[in-house]
Amino acid sequence: MITETKIVVRYAETDQMGIAHHANYAVWFEQARTEFIKSFGISYSEMEKRGVMMPLTKLETIYKIPAHYEDELTVYTRTVRLSPVRIRLEYELRRADTERPLSFGSTEHAFVDSQTFLPVNVKRRMPELYAKMEAGVEEPLRALSK
Amino acid sequence: MITETKIVVRYAETDQMGIAHHANYAVWFEQARTEFIKSFGISYSEMEKRGVMMPLTKLETIYKIPAHYEDELTVYTRTVRLSPVRIRLEYELRRADTERPLSFGSTEHAFVDSQTFLPVNVKRRMPELYAKMEAGVEEPLRALSK
Amino acid sequence: MITETKIVVRYAETDQMGIAHHANYAVWFEQARTEFIKSFGISYSEMEKRGVMMPLTKLETIYKIPAHYEDELTVYTRTVRLSPVRIRLEYELRRADTERPLSFGSTEHAFVDSQTFLPVNVKRRMPELYAKMEAGVEEPLRALSK
Amino acid sequence: MITETKIVVRYAETDQMGIAHHANYAVWFEQARTEFIKSFGISYSEMEKRGVMMPLTKLETIYKIPAHYEDELTVYTRTVRLSPVRIRLEYELRRADTERPLSFGSTEHAFVDSQTFLPVNVKRRMPELYAKMEAGVEEPLRALSK
Repeated sequence: MITETKIVVRYAETDQMGIAHHANYAVWFEQARTEFIKSFGISYSEMEKRGVMMPLTKLETIYKIPAHYEDELTVYTRTVRLSPVRIRLEYELRRADTERPLSFGSTEHAFVDSQTFLPVNVKRRMPELYAKMEAGVEEPLRALSK
Repeated sequence: MITETKIVVRYAETDQMGIAHHANYAVWFEQARTEFIKSFGISYSEMEKRGVMMPLTKLETIYKIPAHYEDELTVYTRTVRLSPVRIRLEYELRRADTERPLSFGSTEHAFVDSQTFLPVNVKRRMPELYAKMEAGVEEPLRALSK
Repeated sequence: MITETKIVVRYAETDQMGIAHHANYAVWFEQARTEFIKSFGISYSEMEKRGVMMPLTKLETIYKIPAHYEDELTVYTRTVRLSPVRIRLEYELRRADTERPLSFGSTEHAFVDSQTFLPVNVKRRMPELYAKMEAGVEEPLRALSK
Repeated sequence: MITETKIVVRYAETDQMGIAHHANYAVWFEQARTEFIKSFGISYSEMEKRGVMMPLTKLETIYKIPAHYEDELTVYTRTVRLSPVRIRLEYELRRADTERPLSFGSTEHAFVDSQTFLPVNVKRRMPELYAKMEAGVEEPLRALSK
């Protein structure tokens, strides 16, 4: 399963190079991840209330074409690896006027308990969500490190 | 009592006008507030652990002279109003090469309980801190709204 | 004229109090301003290309009710004061489940030349835009300082 | 050559997990990069004035141990790869109370012309700086992708 999230570049996200600052891509991927999880019928807010958090263990971003203020972008989000205690998502950032993506990204997360920060078996804790996520795993993008 | 906090403008804090984006001033004032509170012998982290938080109820910022990447700035911080349930701090942002401040700011905060977000009487909950803060109240700056 | 801008609170915008951090409101108002200007038939990007920028001279934000991650918010934006060299906009931030706004805000801007940062007479430089903006001036909100 | 940059985690940098939000690491690495470049006797501001910019082409961050509000961190910065048109820097983020780094990071940059965004030969454009940087290249960290 691949979801699409719309982003419009904010003025505050630009820097003095006149382009969107690179740190914002992680924030856009996160917004895309929020919508991706929602597409499984549970919000990430609810996941946290049920005691599961997904802190990052790794982030990679490849920047190909800069984005500018007021650009209308789409993030394509997919899961490419899933286990009961870990997940890896990948992202393509696109703008309608360019054939190739502006950017590729990946994030890796641990499933941890909200109180203790210790690993949590999400397959056991939230079996329905896990089954849906497992069914939606996609092929990884070639542009990224594994 | 007036504390001085050093800030160096980060690249990520600039925008495509080539100046520091206005939203960052609130973050700089907050960093200055952290050091201001620390000067009373307790960190804000400890205050939160002891059950007291200080969410903002009001923010004002006046922008006189823009700041730029790598500028070395100083925030001068003072309390100008204090009651057992509220506090108002004021800030001047200065750069060594200009006689007048780049910016003036104020923040108003409620003292609330970390669990319930309900008002907390900080004079009763942390009497020593309150006494020190009360003794350090300064005159308000004329540039700001009251 | 009053425009409506939809915002969904991002995870990155929360802080350890569990609410949206106060500095983000200025960014949301800015996103609302972008859409407000667009409603006059010119984007702010185009304004900058035509040599006019709108740096802030003043910001005020009043925080009434906290916003949380994934909250769906609406910013209502209006101009309340306009001259050939200055503009003041005001903002109400609302969430569907509360009758009263979460927050009120105002921003004041100078119209300046993109190259020199010197004041620019926008009535002369962009007469059509000015006429439209002038026709759309609204009453100020009572909650804010003048 | 390896430089050390001090960072204190800001409140605005925390999120509702109660830890520093992952997107800020890119901003801290950037602040460390600013000081790293300065150690060669030229500021990044001056580089830009002389027509050379260093946009990111790649970012990787590995998160091992979370950082918290008011934590005092040190970023260790080094160049591990350099050519006349590209540079790769690597970062270790440490806190005094842990033996192992909290985080590892890398950034890759193109040297481009400030006006055209086209590649620039920095060895030719700024030979003295290039020679110094070349002399200071260090071994890469094993934790990171190449």
